Amino acid sequence: MTNEKMIIEIKEWLKEAADYIRVNLTNELDVSQKSGRTDLVTNIDEETQLFLIKKINQHYPNDRILAEEKGFNSLDSLNGRVWIIDPIDGTMNFVMEHENFCIMIAVYQDGVGQLGFIYDVMKDELYWGEKDHGVFQNDRRLPQPKDAALSEGLIGMNAYMYRKNIYSAGEIGHASMGIRVSGCAGVELIAILKGNHIGYISNLSPWDYAAGLVLINEFGFSYSNIEGNPLAFDKREYFIAATPKAYTEMQEKFIHK
Amino acid sequence: MTNEKMIIEIKEWLKEAADYIRVNLTNELDVSQKSGRTDLVTNIDEETQLFLIKKINQHYPNDRILAEEKGFNSLDSLNGRVWIIDPIDGTMNFVMEHENFCIMIAVYQDGVGQLGFIYDVMKDELYWGEKDHGVFQNDRRLPQPKDAALSEGLIGMNAYMYRKNIYSAGEIGHASMGIRVSGCAGVELIAILKGNHIGYISNLSPWDYAAGLVLINEFGFSYSNIEGNPLAFDKREYFIAATPKAYTEMQEKFIHK
Repeated sequence: MTNEKMIIEIKEWLKEAADYIRVNLTNELDVSQKSGRTDLVTNIDEETQLFLIKKINQHYPNDRILAEEKGFNSLDSLNGRVWIIDPIDGTMNFVMEHENFCIMIAVYQDGVGQLGFIYDVMKDELYWGEKDHGVFQNDRRLPQPKDAALSEGLIGMNAYMYRKNIYSAGEIGHASMGIRVSGCAGVELIAILKGNHIGYISNLSPWDYAAGLVLINEFGFSYSNIEGNPLAFDKREYFIAATPKAYTEMQEKFIHK
Repeated sequence: MTNEKMIIEIKEWLKEAADYIRVNLTNELDVSQKSGRTDLVTNIDEETQLFLIKKINQHYPNDRILAEEKGFNSLDSLNGRVWIIDPIDGTMNFVMEHENFCIMIAVYQDGVGQLGFIYDVMKDELYWGEKDHGVFQNDRRLPQPKDAALSEGLIGMNAYMYRKNIYSAGEIGHASMGIRVSGCAGVELIAILKGNHIGYISNLSPWDYAAGLVLINEFGFSYSNIEGNPLAFDKREYFIAATPKAYTEMQEKFIHK
């Protein structure tokens, strides 16, 4: 591994952040709305982000940071080494379910993903990997999932896109074995990495997919914005990731039919 | 507890069945279609059902059994003591995800639920209870969930009903904090018991809801077929369960608007 020291550090930070989250989960949360009544942020999102940013600044003072919460949610470019962070991915689940949320950290170099970490806090399952070195669940290397067709598997979906048939998401779901809606990009990307789902269609910001892309790239999965163009990393956009077979079927038979 | 011996026995059978399922999960499954390409049954569903039926016949030879798989999926009445069993609830998840499925067992006396067990096998979490004695997660008694309104919580949904707005399911989802689709009635009913979701709308058979009703009844939740009539226990029908507040809102503002 080329980044062994950094991997060890990030794992330590994630464990420390997760311990903090678990302890504070049972306290009264301070919940605020961002863009609307279903777009939430809590004091724990902000405190976790601050903790991770402090660690990065302390150990890697020249690196730049793109992160979900206030003050860090835009960058003019991905030049140099950039950390992309979602302190709590699935804040609605965090507030309502107290489970099914993740901490996500990615390290990119000049726009190319080097390290990815998706930590399902309540399951204590860390999915992580380094470019060209495979994907791990905690200490166990994950096997390459099967290149399954759309009709052979379940697909994770954004509920609104499915209901409104945006980019044929409703028809795509109908052609699959079924849709699942977890409300957490990290949980959905983990389902792809484990071979549980054949794909995921949603409306995502860079911090929702940056870590996951490093990992699904290791397995040769396909991903892009929903029209088939590279993800921009500078805005929220419609996102698709899938097995190569299901991705091609979705593009040809549904999205560009 | 009035049924302490029976509770101990059922817990033992569930553990034994779950051990069998876990061991065989990594083997090649023998998967068949029932009513269509997304309605699956496996050899493990059938073997688990057979195991449970044998135990019941051995210990309670005069009792009758209603169960999902072949030969046991209808009864002329619920007179006397009846066991209602779903050996693997969420067979699609069982096949595709190897998680997010449950074993469910209910005991009814003359149509009234006495005991309910929902066992999330891969999480090793057993939700169970006896009429008038509360609900437990393994050995821990669950607290009474809040009587939250529709706009205050997440709701579990059948994906097809949501997409096609059947009985206003799409509009109901939009009025909530968001929908979740797990593909497993047991997982959805557990989410209600934990206070994670305010309700669940789906299309269910008696073995999908029998155990869950015993448990949600302990917390005073509301449930019925979607039109507000008692569940028939003799067919698949549209099902709704929710906090009293959210149930009333859904009936008045959406279903019978």
